[in-house]
Amino acid sequence: MTRIAICAPGKRLEREHADAALDLAAREFPGVELAFHPQCFARHGHFAGDDATRLAALLECANDPAAGAVWFAHGGYGSNRIAAQAVATMGAAARDKAFLGYSDTGYLLAALYKGGIGKPAHGPMVADVRREGGDAAVRRALDWFTGIGEGLEESLDDRPAAAFNLTTLAMLCGTELMPDLTGHVVMVEEVSEHLYAVDRLFFHVTQHLHGIAGLRLGRISDVPENDRPFGTSPEDIARFWCERASIPYLGFADIGHDGANRIVPFGLARAARRA
Amino acid sequence: MTRIAICAPGKRLEREHADAALDLAAREFPGVELAFHPQCFARHGHFAGDDATRLAALLECANDPAAGAVWFAHGGYGSNRIAAQAVATMGAAARDKAFLGYSDTGYLLAALYKGGIGKPAHGPMVADVRREGGDAAVRRALDWFTGIGEGLEESLDDRPAAAFNLTTLAMLCGTELMPDLTGHVVMVEEVSEHLYAVDRLFFHVTQHLHGIAGLRLGRISDVPENDRPFGTSPEDIARFWCERASIPYLGFADIGHDGANRIVPFGLARAARRA
Repeated sequence: MTRIAICAPGKRLEREHADAALDLAAREFPGVELAFHPQCFARHGHFAGDDATRLAALLECANDPAAGAVWFAHGGYGSNRIAAQAVATMGAAARDKAFLGYSDTGYLLAALYKGGIGKPAHGPMVADVRREGGDAAVRRALDWFTGIGEGLEESLDDRPAAAFNLTTLAMLCGTELMPDLTGHVVMVEEVSEHLYAVDRLFFHVTQHLHGIAGLRLGRISDVPENDRPFGTSPEDIARFWCERASIPYLGFADIGHDGANRIVPFGLARAARRA
Repeated sequence: MTRIAICAPGKRLEREHADAALDLAAREFPGVELAFHPQCFARHGHFAGDDATRLAALLECANDPAAGAVWFAHGGYGSNRIAAQAVATMGAAARDKAFLGYSDTGYLLAALYKGGIGKPAHGPMVADVRREGGDAAVRRALDWFTGIGEGLEESLDDRPAAAFNLTTLAMLCGTELMPDLTGHVVMVEEVSEHLYAVDRLFFHVTQHLHGIAGLRLGRISDVPENDRPFGTSPEDIARFWCERASIPYLGFADIGHDGANRIVPFGLARAARRA
């Protein structure tokens, strides 16, 4: 039995989305136990419980010796508030675990990777079950947790990689949570941001990414309509700022805030240990 | 005659707002010439002309030996795209000029301050004439350009200061445009951002501001309604992140995206040369 411990470091999970993932796992993954921490359903203002509650749940999941992996239930803002304390307090049981999530949970993936703790990977979360293609996203995550590599992002090669939501990466740059990405292929995706904001974020992150192997562009989705058109495409934006920062632009990446979001293990994909 | 050269490094200016500022200046500041560069009214996608057009206009204004000051017409996104090239190309005539703006033009204020060029200050722009209290904002700017110090932010003391839009400061941190703010009182303001985004921005900037004298909080205005309340106030957010980064929180600052926005010269206010 593969036990997957689930907590919500930012936004709370709806019960119906937990149930949908449980149903899918029961049907298709009889060897998987989805262990939802009660904190997933807590409420405290914006968050799934206050900082202390979310931190404690994350540590219980990471330090659970019976669990082979930690799966983040949802993004939403908040994991940056607990990430530094979390990685400083994780014990031996966390060292071999897979950690899977994206969007706001990228703060945790970054901090784990920086700390050399477990196998962080950028990929689907429980709450993705609500999306179009959500069942496939959950299936991709459970496949990966159980050792099936089909859900990996297809461009992954023998260079180390990392993937982030663009805003999350921008907020990580220069902070205590930021890992050294020298020599890495860095993939970014964004959702619900104006193109001028995407351009601004690229200005910021490319100045912090000198020395990476290159940048790949995931999907920039649900761009809000502005009072005036920005005038260039997301790919033009990525190329422009990569060129200014002398970073190789490597093309698209198959990641995004959607059901098709593929899995990007941090570091070398082939070396990534699964639960 | 005090000649003030005006350009738009980001968004274009509406003619009616230029006319309103001209009318006010003609009535109340007969010794002031407002020299609007035609680029203020240019259009190119999101911007008041493409990068080359905006850069050329900024350089013409900064290098105009007959002008005592450069006044930014409007914020809007875009000044970061031309700031590095602009400061690298400014000549002797720019060295003594006052430069006044805020919001997106903070990228230029930062780059000028870093480069030791002129007297950058955070304060009203021409387009503020459209706001409630807009005439007072324009009057405050023209008072300052002509040597009257009444519009200064009242907490300014014998410590150097700097002021920024919070998003602008976050995007500046760690880039080639960022000045050394060690020992400075840093003031920040924000508009039209969710409180979770304000919290996220504070996480980022406080990690980059170690060594400043302290932080002051300007107005956090027009916060959009979210699907769930954030749960704490802007001042709680500022106090929380300042405490975590061991930065003294110094209270409020009288700056913001509004007609009451007071003037914060970069560096020592008393030493700030006006036009």
